[in-house]
Amino acid sequence: MDDLPVGLADIEDAAARLAPVAVRTPLVRSPRLDAALGATVLVKAEPLQRTGSFKFRGAYNAVVRAGGRPVVAYSSGNHAQGVAAAARLAGVPATIVMPRDAPAIKIAGTRADGAEVVLYDRTRESREAIGEAVAERAGAALIKPYDATATVAGQGTCGLEMVEQSREHGLVPDLAVMCCGGGGLAAGCAVALAAAHPGIALYTAEPAGFDDTKRSLAAGERLGVEPGATSVCDALLAPMPGAFTFEINRRLVAGGLAVSDAEVAHAMRVAFEEFKLVVEPGGAVALAAVLAGKVDVRGRTVLVVLSGGNVDLADFHRLTAAAPALAPAA
Amino acid sequence: MDDLPVGLADIEDAAARLAPVAVRTPLVRSPRLDAALGATVLVKAEPLQRTGSFKFRGAYNAVVRAGGRPVVAYSSGNHAQGVAAAARLAGVPATIVMPRDAPAIKIAGTRADGAEVVLYDRTRESREAIGEAVAERAGAALIKPYDATATVAGQGTCGLEMVEQSREHGLVPDLAVMCCGGGGLAAGCAVALAAAHPGIALYTAEPAGFDDTKRSLAAGERLGVEPGATSVCDALLAPMPGAFTFEINRRLVAGGLAVSDAEVAHAMRVAFEEFKLVVEPGGAVALAAVLAGKVDVRGRTVLVVLSGGNVDLADFHRLTAAAPALAPAA
Repeated sequence: MDDLPVGLADIEDAAARLAPVAVRTPLVRSPRLDAALGATVLVKAEPLQRTGSFKFRGAYNAVVRAGGRPVVAYSSGNHAQGVAAAARLAGVPATIVMPRDAPAIKIAGTRADGAEVVLYDRTRESREAIGEAVAERAGAALIKPYDATATVAGQGTCGLEMVEQSREHGLVPDLAVMCCGGGGLAAGCAVALAAAHPGIALYTAEPAGFDDTKRSLAAGERLGVEPGATSVCDALLAPMPGAFTFEINRRLVAGGLAVSDAEVAHAMRVAFEEFKLVVEPGGAVALAAVLAGKVDVRGRTVLVVLSGGNVDLADFHRLTAAAPALAPAA
Repeated sequence: MDDLPVGLADIEDAAARLAPVAVRTPLVRSPRLDAALGATVLVKAEPLQRTGSFKFRGAYNAVVRAGGRPVVAYSSGNHAQGVAAAARLAGVPATIVMPRDAPAIKIAGTRADGAEVVLYDRTRESREAIGEAVAERAGAALIKPYDATATVAGQGTCGLEMVEQSREHGLVPDLAVMCCGGGGLAAGCAVALAAAHPGIALYTAEPAGFDDTKRSLAAGERLGVEPGATSVCDALLAPMPGAFTFEINRRLVAGGLAVSDAEVAHAMRVAFEEFKLVVEPGGAVALAAVLAGKVDVRGRTVLVVLSGGNVDLADFHRLTAAAPALAPAA
């Protein structure tokens, strides 16, 4: 693993930087979920992270490493809030380019942290182009959502904590499932988990139609999403795996899993009832994959990342109202 | 404080017993809530406790101290689940007397842990009488929901953790607000908090109409609830302060606060949006009291207990749909 673009040392360095400001989110369990799946499931509760998602980790690490320059970012919402909160903590101005149809809670959260928000039309404009133009105009550092060392190293602190917390539970994970958009969380966690547990089986989880990482892993090369796909997972609509993150994931990740909107809604309901956690659609795909049996977990110890909880209340109601509860153990 | 019926040593003893099985729930923060209230608010997240409420703490301590005897309890739901889970862990049979109109999630949770559930009619029958009759018939130990040393000492471990975790945050609490039904959580936490912080101002929070502790504290003697009162807080419908718990609370608690159903619904929404936590109505009264300005928190460091998260999804939708979001800082 020595030739990967992010190493354990980068993650440990990020962890030291994040310690005073990030939440060491708990690794939670549910005896009922364990019984239903016949497995030992350890759930990483990133909705409890500062700004409501893991994105704060990478954003803060990258903002601090930008050395006091103003920052710019483009994001559907969670990276936006992460960068806004990080910039406020670091005392630098932030400009965030967000799609006009992002959840209201994410736009409000970004503005509440003092960032200037520039809205764009997701169907007609390129956020990358707008973000780069703003960065150039303002002499600001562009904080990329996944394809950068500092960002991936920050997300990897989530994996580092899972290693430590599994040990505190007296358990050795056999398998881990991580939500995947551009692949930053998966790549960072993969480096940390593979370093501690060389035999662990790592999987990414994505929404059906946006399973570009799954198909890219199978093909051995980066493939884009299929045109015209839709998903309730607003956080996971990246068009293609990051060049940088895919370089890591193709080496460390065993395979990709994809879940339907209905499977996501079921996972959101299970998180509500069994863990008392609010999870947004994109944050629930890993749990959805495990609940839907996309990977065989029976008799194994499984890490599952719930990656965020920024969902509008009305959307939460609409999505979960008809979703089934956890089926009891057979 | 040496003459109180529960002392710090009882709580420390319970903490040692609970360490291998209970969750050390996080003390969480929200920069937006702090800004809106002009205060530093530390929120104890007991919905993340085993069985979804603080009740597991006292139940487990009491069940283990019953020394291997079968156990019986009466409860509207959270104590029921706590006792059922504790009995399963301790390997003893449990019978739980529950009202027929308890939330489905609480009855299902109690049965899922292997307890025998006896349903009764809350308007016509006495749960105390049924519980005592079952205990006598079965030779079982009655695990009281609040009025017993072992139960209160167990709930006090929540307070002990708040003392430790405040210190970890580098903060000294000026004030704490605790949900209150029979008064077990309040009494246990009061002993732990007052021991560590002699100057702390402690408040109970109750639903309007079930503010028997508030009125009893003002009167200096135990008063019952007013007949005909109703509340969405199914967990907090105790008819009168416990004799035992009131003995503690009248000595240590500064006063009682009462909140309306609408204030509770607002707090549930704020917990959803700002903390990503599912909180049941009765679990939200302390946060509701702080949000509604029932006590002046400006400029102060405030501990707030969210005591449980066992709420049916449909009830959660119904209660929160029209509730207002957190008002931004003025």
